[in-house]
Amino acid sequence: MKGIANAPEMIEVESGSIITPKGFHANGVYTGVKRKRLDLGAIYCDVPASSAAVYTCNRIQAAPLQVTKESIMKEGKLQAIVVNSGNANACTGERGVKDAYEMRKASAAHFHVPEHYVAVTSTGVIGEYMPMDKVLPGIEQLKPEASLEGAEAFNQAILTTDTMNKKTCFQTTVNGKVVSIGGVAKGSGMINPNMATMLSFITTDAVIEPPVLQQALSQITNKTFNRITVDGDTSTNDMVVVMASGLAGHETLTPEHPDWLAFYQALKQTCESLAKKIARDGEGATKLIEVQVNGALNDEEAGKIAKKIVGSDLVKSAVYGADANWGRIICAIGYSGCEINPETIDIAIGPIQTLQNSQPLVFSEEAATAYLQEEETVFINVDLHIGTGTGKAWGCDLTYDYVRINAGYRT
Amino acid sequence: MKGIANAPEMIEVESGSIITPKGFHANGVYTGVKRKRLDLGAIYCDVPASSAAVYTCNRIQAAPLQVTKESIMKEGKLQAIVVNSGNANACTGERGVKDAYEMRKASAAHFHVPEHYVAVTSTGVIGEYMPMDKVLPGIEQLKPEASLEGAEAFNQAILTTDTMNKKTCFQTTVNGKVVSIGGVAKGSGMINPNMATMLSFITTDAVIEPPVLQQALSQITNKTFNRITVDGDTSTNDMVVVMASGLAGHETLTPEHPDWLAFYQALKQTCESLAKKIARDGEGATKLIEVQVNGALNDEEAGKIAKKIVGSDLVKSAVYGADANWGRIICAIGYSGCEINPETIDIAIGPIQTLQNSQPLVFSEEAATAYLQEEETVFINVDLHIGTGTGKAWGCDLTYDYVRINAGYRT
Repeated sequence: MKGIANAPEMIEVESGSIITPKGFHANGVYTGVKRKRLDLGAIYCDVPASSAAVYTCNRIQAAPLQVTKESIMKEGKLQAIVVNSGNANACTGERGVKDAYEMRKASAAHFHVPEHYVAVTSTGVIGEYMPMDKVLPGIEQLKPEASLEGAEAFNQAILTTDTMNKKTCFQTTVNGKVVSIGGVAKGSGMINPNMATMLSFITTDAVIEPPVLQQALSQITNKTFNRITVDGDTSTNDMVVVMASGLAGHETLTPEHPDWLAFYQALKQTCESLAKKIARDGEGATKLIEVQVNGALNDEEAGKIAKKIVGSDLVKSAVYGADANWGRIICAIGYSGCEINPETIDIAIGPIQTLQNSQPLVFSEEAATAYLQEEETVFINVDLHIGTGTGKAWGCDLTYDYVRINAGYRT
Repeated sequence: MKGIANAPEMIEVESGSIITPKGFHANGVYTGVKRKRLDLGAIYCDVPASSAAVYTCNRIQAAPLQVTKESIMKEGKLQAIVVNSGNANACTGERGVKDAYEMRKASAAHFHVPEHYVAVTSTGVIGEYMPMDKVLPGIEQLKPEASLEGAEAFNQAILTTDTMNKKTCFQTTVNGKVVSIGGVAKGSGMINPNMATMLSFITTDAVIEPPVLQQALSQITNKTFNRITVDGDTSTNDMVVVMASGLAGHETLTPEHPDWLAFYQALKQTCESLAKKIARDGEGATKLIEVQVNGALNDEEAGKIAKKIVGSDLVKSAVYGADANWGRIICAIGYSGCEINPETIDIAIGPIQTLQNSQPLVFSEEAATAYLQEEETVFINVDLHIGTGTGKAWGCDLTYDYVRINAGYRT
């Protein structure tokens, strides 16, 4: 395990997954809610795990979110997460809430744990009742295992229109002990937004109390999952859950712990890695776009501006068209609602500086086009020169026929 | 001229245009800024006209906006508006401002009016300098005439990627005198957003002072032009200008005038008509969508929610797919950021009630599909049942291949 000098030691474990941290098991089964593919999965922990979660900010929230919130609120512990895909159990009224409670109850009985140690999550169609005749027998079949096959089956079971699995794993050291953090996510790109629910499940064997874990997750989510664009439509079912088994055997982590930063950065890296994989999996997307904004009034405004840029259809179609169209970037900066000085903006697209102090620079269009055509990740750098705020956001290009019409010419 | 009982008398003049109000002339010429089509136009008034304008809220504003603001601010009067298409003169720094002033100066000399009686406006490519060698000789060619041909040429000259002309004309009576209001607009749909600048020019022969006209225009713009979705990208060049020649010969209009409402409603109808034409002209759009929200906390929130719904890619693609997908509508309501009660929402798609008190209703999918397939304007009605606020917004469906993939199934 090698670390950069003065930076917390951290390595990415290529073959790692949600079962890499000690104590975790996972699997996925087919119940028939979806037509063909696996549609019900579970993560199980040998011990009650310190848990934290963040939820969609949509005022309309699906029934399972209500039930999961109640579970986590009670003790801050979870031992099982049960997820179905194909039906979101959203906008299903009282019956939907009753169904979510029933899913939790059946799962608790199956895993021999208290009900409030179970989280339930759903993704799929809105406004249709959950086919309980399929889900309840499915829960009986769930036999989580500490194998890559089990983790892979879980990952399959939570997908809807995703075109690729999204998993990641990082390791760091706390008190000399290896701490693992594994994560999976689902989420489709903006061009298939009807299934845009984003779910992510993260496991770790770190020793940490629920309130501390919750605070870290909330902070990190704001700079990772909340910094990707899906399509501007916030799902009724979005959720990120993290479970910490505490089996790594180090001293309990708090922000005062000497290795706190190592853990925090590894958790952040896990979330950022998953967030970028979601952005990259925009249906048909060919590129990941990363926007870095510096010199903003503060970090919050920097992040907001970065997200406006990467969320602009204009910018996305320009990237697809390999057009170094800084006019669209400055336009998005202008309508971001953030403090700017219209006279002091620098914009670079990859290595190509295109605007300095808001004045167009002469640059090689050929070099810019080559950069945009060749790189799989396109970097856009903005400096506003009004403060010290910095922030990043991620998205993908737009590649469809309707965009193709517009991507070819400079505006 | 027939009016509805108790409503201000108003008629739409099918053949009317910006030259219908007394005193106005228009034309358009070809200068070569665009490759082939007319690209420079002017509206000229026989007398200095009371004038008012609203501008883009983008913090980055194109040079001509600055010059036009200065013109109108000085006296509230305009006698000529000169517009070019093909180049936006935006993000062009000091040289851009100098060029805009030079366009104004040349126009003032050509029309023999003071410089501050001239407004200049541009739409087109961002970040390229104005080809003054083409524009200045073009100004010399401008010979506005009080003919439909002249108005038509002006309208052609301001278009970029629009697929249809957008003009309208209404007449009402003030002190028994006929008052005409004519308007033209340009603006492309969200699917060709790089040229999304929205411009509108409105003429009237009403007698009205500039500050009163400005107040009416600002109020009306908030409920008409600001209620259409283009693509979430606010252009650096958006502008609406109204000129009132005062040649209708009635007593000066103020909000206290007995016929104020007649004028106000006719001006509002002119703006709403143009706004709807812009929304309907989304490239490839097959339908206009009108969303009416009632029962909101207040009118502002109702308008905001209506605009969120009509701006949702999910809702737009569902309309194209003739899918009565109320789940996407309630999802947009939920993330609107406005006050709602998640338990008391009614949603109707045309005549089909789909949700009552947030509970799904059983409805005929066939009837809903037939409605969505057959109607050229789709109405979505929402009642939140928490207040008395009402508001409308307009948009269009999404019809492209990338949407086609998603429009076919219910989520």
